[in-house]
Amino acid sequence: MRVTQRVKKILSNYDSENPGVKANLARMLMAGKLGGTGRMIILPVDQGIEHGPARSFAVNPDGYDPDYHHQLAIDAGLNAYAAPLGQLEVSTQSFFGQIPTIVKLNHSNSLSRLKEDADQAIFGSVEDCLRLGASAIGFTIYPGSDQGLEQMEEIAELIREAKAVGLPTVLWSYPRGGNLSKDGETAMDVVAYGAHLAAQLGAHVIKVKLPTDHLEQAEAKKEFQNARIPIGSQGERVAEVVRSCFNGRRIVVFSGGAAKGTDAVLDDVRAIHEGGGNGSIIGRNCFRRPREEALELLDTMIRIFQGKA
Amino acid sequence: MRVTQRVKKILSNYDSENPGVKANLARMLMAGKLGGTGRMIILPVDQGIEHGPARSFAVNPDGYDPDYHHQLAIDAGLNAYAAPLGQLEVSTQSFFGQIPTIVKLNHSNSLSRLKEDADQAIFGSVEDCLRLGASAIGFTIYPGSDQGLEQMEEIAELIREAKAVGLPTVLWSYPRGGNLSKDGETAMDVVAYGAHLAAQLGAHVIKVKLPTDHLEQAEAKKEFQNARIPIGSQGERVAEVVRSCFNGRRIVVFSGGAAKGTDAVLDDVRAIHEGGGNGSIIGRNCFRRPREEALELLDTMIRIFQGKA
Amino acid sequence: MRVTQRVKKILSNYDSENPGVKANLARMLMAGKLGGTGRMIILPVDQGIEHGPARSFAVNPDGYDPDYHHQLAIDAGLNAYAAPLGQLEVSTQSFFGQIPTIVKLNHSNSLSRLKEDADQAIFGSVEDCLRLGASAIGFTIYPGSDQGLEQMEEIAELIREAKAVGLPTVLWSYPRGGNLSKDGETAMDVVAYGAHLAAQLGAHVIKVKLPTDHLEQAEAKKEFQNARIPIGSQGERVAEVVRSCFNGRRIVVFSGGAAKGTDAVLDDVRAIHEGGGNGSIIGRNCFRRPREEALELLDTMIRIFQGKA
Amino acid sequence: MRVTQRVKKILSNYDSENPGVKANLARMLMAGKLGGTGRMIILPVDQGIEHGPARSFAVNPDGYDPDYHHQLAIDAGLNAYAAPLGQLEVSTQSFFGQIPTIVKLNHSNSLSRLKEDADQAIFGSVEDCLRLGASAIGFTIYPGSDQGLEQMEEIAELIREAKAVGLPTVLWSYPRGGNLSKDGETAMDVVAYGAHLAAQLGAHVIKVKLPTDHLEQAEAKKEFQNARIPIGSQGERVAEVVRSCFNGRRIVVFSGGAAKGTDAVLDDVRAIHEGGGNGSIIGRNCFRRPREEALELLDTMIRIFQGKA
Amino acid sequence: MRVTQRVKKILSNYDSENPGVKANLARMLMAGKLGGTGRMIILPVDQGIEHGPARSFAVNPDGYDPDYHHQLAIDAGLNAYAAPLGQLEVSTQSFFGQIPTIVKLNHSNSLSRLKEDADQAIFGSVEDCLRLGASAIGFTIYPGSDQGLEQMEEIAELIREAKAVGLPTVLWSYPRGGNLSKDGETAMDVVAYGAHLAAQLGAHVIKVKLPTDHLEQAEAKKEFQNARIPIGSQGERVAEVVRSCFNGRRIVVFSGGAAKGTDAVLDDVRAIHEGGGNGSIIGRNCFRRPREEALELLDTMIRIFQGKA
Repeated sequence: MRVTQRVKKILSNYDSENPGVKANLARMLMAGKLGGTGRMIILPVDQGIEHGPARSFAVNPDGYDPDYHHQLAIDAGLNAYAAPLGQLEVSTQSFFGQIPTIVKLNHSNSLSRLKEDADQAIFGSVEDCLRLGASAIGFTIYPGSDQGLEQMEEIAELIREAKAVGLPTVLWSYPRGGNLSKDGETAMDVVAYGAHLAAQLGAHVIKVKLPTDHLEQAEAKKEFQNARIPIGSQGERVAEVVRSCFNGRRIVVFSGGAAKGTDAVLDDVRAIHEGGGNGSIIGRNCFRRPREEALELLDTMIRIFQGKA
Repeated sequence: MRVTQRVKKILSNYDSENPGVKANLARMLMAGKLGGTGRMIILPVDQGIEHGPARSFAVNPDGYDPDYHHQLAIDAGLNAYAAPLGQLEVSTQSFFGQIPTIVKLNHSNSLSRLKEDADQAIFGSVEDCLRLGASAIGFTIYPGSDQGLEQMEEIAELIREAKAVGLPTVLWSYPRGGNLSKDGETAMDVVAYGAHLAAQLGAHVIKVKLPTDHLEQAEAKKEFQNARIPIGSQGERVAEVVRSCFNGRRIVVFSGGAAKGTDAVLDDVRAIHEGGGNGSIIGRNCFRRPREEALELLDTMIRIFQGKA
Repeated sequence: MRVTQRVKKILSNYDSENPGVKANLARMLMAGKLGGTGRMIILPVDQGIEHGPARSFAVNPDGYDPDYHHQLAIDAGLNAYAAPLGQLEVSTQSFFGQIPTIVKLNHSNSLSRLKEDADQAIFGSVEDCLRLGASAIGFTIYPGSDQGLEQMEEIAELIREAKAVGLPTVLWSYPRGGNLSKDGETAMDVVAYGAHLAAQLGAHVIKVKLPTDHLEQAEAKKEFQNARIPIGSQGERVAEVVRSCFNGRRIVVFSGGAAKGTDAVLDDVRAIHEGGGNGSIIGRNCFRRPREEALELLDTMIRIFQGKA
Repeated sequence: MRVTQRVKKILSNYDSENPGVKANLARMLMAGKLGGTGRMIILPVDQGIEHGPARSFAVNPDGYDPDYHHQLAIDAGLNAYAAPLGQLEVSTQSFFGQIPTIVKLNHSNSLSRLKEDADQAIFGSVEDCLRLGASAIGFTIYPGSDQGLEQMEEIAELIREAKAVGLPTVLWSYPRGGNLSKDGETAMDVVAYGAHLAAQLGAHVIKVKLPTDHLEQAEAKKEFQNARIPIGSQGERVAEVVRSCFNGRRIVVFSGGAAKGTDAVLDDVRAIHEGGGNGSIIGRNCFRRPREEALELLDTMIRIFQGKA
Repeated sequence: MRVTQRVKKILSNYDSENPGVKANLARMLMAGKLGGTGRMIILPVDQGIEHGPARSFAVNPDGYDPDYHHQLAIDAGLNAYAAPLGQLEVSTQSFFGQIPTIVKLNHSNSLSRLKEDADQAIFGSVEDCLRLGASAIGFTIYPGSDQGLEQMEEIAELIREAKAVGLPTVLWSYPRGGNLSKDGETAMDVVAYGAHLAAQLGAHVIKVKLPTDHLEQAEAKKEFQNARIPIGSQGERVAEVVRSCFNGRRIVVFSGGAAKGTDAVLDDVRAIHEGGGNGSIIGRNCFRRPREEALELLDTMIRIFQGKA
């Protein structure tokens, strides 16, 4: 594997990290069909925990088997596969070494009734990641939640522990809870703020939702308007999020959100591509489709990020 | 670098500390254009976390890049640059060793809705400071907040840990929360009280806001009046804060607060100088100005502290 | 990267290991031009420590620079590059993630006068391997030496520590010292015995020298003769070593020994191939040749292991 | 302090280290009159331990006081001052922060009768270095000694511990003991070998003696002759040592050895300069001269390294 | 207790230590009849371990009872009482707080047959000292012994541990063993060298034997003669030892050695006083005399150190 100039440039933003952390970032950036382009598609499958098994897999029952998703990520030529501890313990025994994996370490679930103090439970550890041969740890924070500060302290400690053993961190930053309105969760200012918090915590890859053009916080709204920051198009909003992550010096990937039509998914991907985002994390829109459709969708996404579609 | 008599005198107040702590204090007091005068200007940039990226940087978008601030602090000839973990991990790789750095270890954020129990999340650790080659740890406490006692216990432990490895502590003491009125947060008696708490916790450099002539607590008000403590001018109020920090035997620096006009900023600096404060911590009033204006402002501030303006 | 059936079969012999260890073995077995064949060529460069810099590199002075060897291993399409700590700290910063690396953790040197109690000094640790993003630890034991038992205890502990964090062990087993004659060091029975000891210690990849047809130990000789074990050809002797490693259920690679002519090197490789060895570790015979000659030699070796030459 | 391009280039060879280690290297490379040139002069004073107080200081009795040497290093504008624990505990209280310090952690002494197993006792620890505000740890190994392997293991562990807290290592590598002849201790091949071992152990700054043109080891002699490595002049021999330290990618400084005449000292310095060595460590030839003579000598040395004399 | 200017001056040499260490030094320097003068008399009683009970106490059988010695030290108005762990566990229960105590942590004994590798066994720990309310730890090293380097490593670690909890170290430095001749053990150069080693190890109070005018080491002899260091009188030799301890910046006390006549003891004391030594440690010459005689002797010694006799 020859690391490309594009990937070397991205990695130069992580020069204060040890070579192990950079090697694992390189491993993810160089894997799959987008390897070397600086773009990434990651398949995350933790919706079994988040929403329950039937709500996640009944529509495409192959998904009840952990191997299905791991195989799909490999076959589609993605950059990495992210999953919870238990699920990876099953599938890793079949697929180790074939695609970089990310152990998602904490999870919310829909049986809990948390609202304003949205929280997650920590299922795994850094040593689990090493034991399973993973290339990164994954974690979710809910900025704005009454549990948000505690979550930040949890991940701050995990990041330190992980980087000491050469593992980078992929941080899901999803503002919610507290005083945030439902619209506020995906507001332009709020998503950018959440992404910035992830960068400040020392995350190496930041995952956020695609923002809308809503502006939630009055003071922020004023600044957006005074500075005439363009946020009319999805691509412009992506660019603003990227800028909020140390002016593009951290890898930022976007999630597709709820299951939706193929055209909507691809429009999002085009916006991420145009706005300079590093890629997509796409879960439900993959595994709730039949395998062939999912592969086809992923192939089109890859071609968009390659500038071919 | 020859340590001046003035700095030696200041450091003699820290004789119970080990030589490592004193060496790092000396490093900050001897750096930059004010090196050796016993006065300091520190550039702190953590408003991305505190207020969000757009609200902080949209007005002067160079500030989205962590290198911008670090470079500005060097070019202006300041004594130290203070920033959060993630931001320093990016810029330190370009600027290590060129200006003393302070890793701010905890942060509040404006997505959280904490009010009476104002709190912060701890992002970094003492080992992060050593790993990044920093000269001090930075921390914020909110005396008065329902979380205040817990914060004091957190910093008490961090101070112990840091000084054992030769790192001094810069402590932001900002009374808020609990029963404190909005005016009370910057009341003369409250600011002096907060500064004293920081000194008692073992902080080596104490950062507070400039106090108003409001007196919040009835019992304190009585004493101020009985003793006829002069608090009419800003300089007098600065002197009272300095006196509250072990009669001037701890280094005290003042923050400028919200962005404002150049004249207002310079008036504050003159009052700090006259009142015997050790210097200024100035963030928003720097990085929200264009670079050339910021450099000019900082240069005037330096000349005031040098007694030349 | 699709793991081949051949590699899966090899890895099935390591089923009691955790997925991290197997992922790193897979990484080495799937890398380079021999990736997937179950054969490996590893470039080890620690002769600077073993024999001194001039004796190792003067003949081809590019070798004084650590990057030269790391680059050579990549350009030749090898499976892994093995080197000491200091050397890898230099080259890893240029090449991380481009080829699996093995940190050789202990070393002898020619300034020390140890003979019967041949020993090595431990330069690195398992945490160094993680920090540098390595895929395995490397270690040397001298069975027969008066220090041999202590070395076995050292590596036994390191193997345990390494596998807990997902790192397999490549073990150099070189009988010498004690009562062993010079000829005995490469005797058929002794090499097979040393290989077996490595397997029993839990090594994942075993590296030995190519044995001669000499039989050192009287009791062993008797058994070889009674059982009419064929050891006349190099291929037969390779097969006997492989059989001694749990009947071929551990990966065994052979070193070429002292620098020699191209034909002699290739004869060795053919014997390893025929005897069912997993591959070659070739150091001096690479880096003491000019780069183009070394690349050509390695290419021929690869084609032999591919069954094409 | 603006780090020069020359120093940045040197530091780029240490990119696998954390920013703290690089900041302390920068601190030493940027201090004093040679700051920024990539050249260094370090004053080490541990001869009180090595040879006893009278043998070291009687000739210039100011040297009995630890402050004398620390002050001399500052006044001469050197890059760093290296001394044992007890001595630094006295002088650091007067001079902290005025010049980078190196705590020499182990020492031999002339009351001990060790010969073939030359060894040292460890006086200080990494935490002592932090407590005293030092910029590096210092250590001596005796490659070739029967205690050499154990010493290498000691320093390997200390290097790991030190770099985790941002401290680089200055390693004195002095082959002696075992089978080495007296002439062999400074033989060209042996000095280069010792320097290479220090680099492989992960030392950041390597200190060796100036080699003679003697070649001690038969196999090395053959390689020097075959490759026609020029070693006739001192400058050529310095260049060969530098090449043996990863082709000049580690900082190498040379000691002047026994007290001698000014011309001899300056000839050595010119040879170091011409051969591309990074500088001098000069102890006895400083403190055994009267202060004014020592300052004059150091000033001439500095000018040679500046290319001005 | 008002600390005198004289004691403050002595303590200023320990400014790199924490206030706890300095407070315990002050406690010893301010205790008893010599309190405040900068001079000390310490009663050490560990001869029961060193030479056996009968050889120590039969001549004055009150000495079999630990309380006898502790009481004597108090009644005589001494600065401190030093004893082994077990002995102090008995007497401390009667006398705690009445005189500073020093727990002697290691001991040789006359049943062991060690010669060239003279060594001691460690009986107590730093936590024992705290538990018993002691003011310092005591330890013996034998520079020159084949065990000397190991002993230095032991005490280096204990000093670190002790000072972290505010306990200074009294270090007995008695060269012996190895190649040292019997006369060499008290030779001028050797005693000064041993004292210097103790200072370098970080000892706070250094205890040595009174030196003779013999010069053991040829190289040292040359320096003594070249520099015309006066060593003809005992006072001059004391001064040379004091100078060897960082030019008088460490507290040095002298032992009287074997039991002898009163005049001889007092001559020694006068020499220590004249030479600028900080005091005496006197054991056998006290407790082998009847109590009244011992008290009288100690009183005369005190008066000598007060300049009254």
